[in-house]
Amino acid sequence: MIERLSGAAREKALSELKGWTKVRGRDAIEKTYLFKDFNEAFGFMSRVALAAEKADHHPEWFNVYNRVHVVLTTHDAKGLSERDVKLAKFMDKIAGKAGKAR
Amino acid sequence: MIERLSGAAREKALSELKGWTKVRGRDAIEKTYLFKDFNEAFGFMSRVALAAEKADHHPEWFNVYNRVHVVLTTHDAKGLSERDVKLAKFMDKIAGKAGKAR
Repeated sequence: MIERLSGAAREKALSELKGWTKVRGRDAIEKTYLFKDFNEAFGFMSRVALAAEKADHHPEWFNVYNRVHVVLTTHDAKGLSERDVKLAKFMDKIAGKAGKAR
Repeated sequence: MIERLSGAAREKALSELKGWTKVRGRDAIEKTYLFKDFNEAFGFMSRVALAAEKADHHPEWFNVYNRVHVVLTTHDAKGLSERDVKLAKFMDKIAGKAGKAR
């Protein structure tokens, strides 16, 4: 069983993430990444897909051309867990400077 | 300039697509594909991405685990064009038996 983040651990974890915001009405976080083009956007998605599959923890995501909108939550924990924070950090790392607007 | 499908050509093109429905309020079509797992779903997306990039015609799509929801339209044509029909047929071909529900 994966534990839902709460209290101080939750505050600390979320404070370490940049550009991620709370999803309205769900215990989930979201971020939109903007890339140069589809090649960059799907390249990003491919790297995330491999990491997600390895960790058995998958994003909810939408893509159109150079834009990738991601929502992270942990269904087994019924909310945000350490797994989401880890995946979010990985995404931020490989996205580089991409990822500004919502 | 890419032409928007209309009249008899449009009817014929849409009648050849199976499981695709009109998006409410937009001149676009949509379909949801259901795969066995994320591996299959993202494998499908990867094949579509290569074809889309080659044709310089990209889908709007959402994925969560084994589910891929696709919307096709042609921005340059301000609506459905032959390019959407071609991409839809390619997706159906490689998805195999996947792709039932909306």
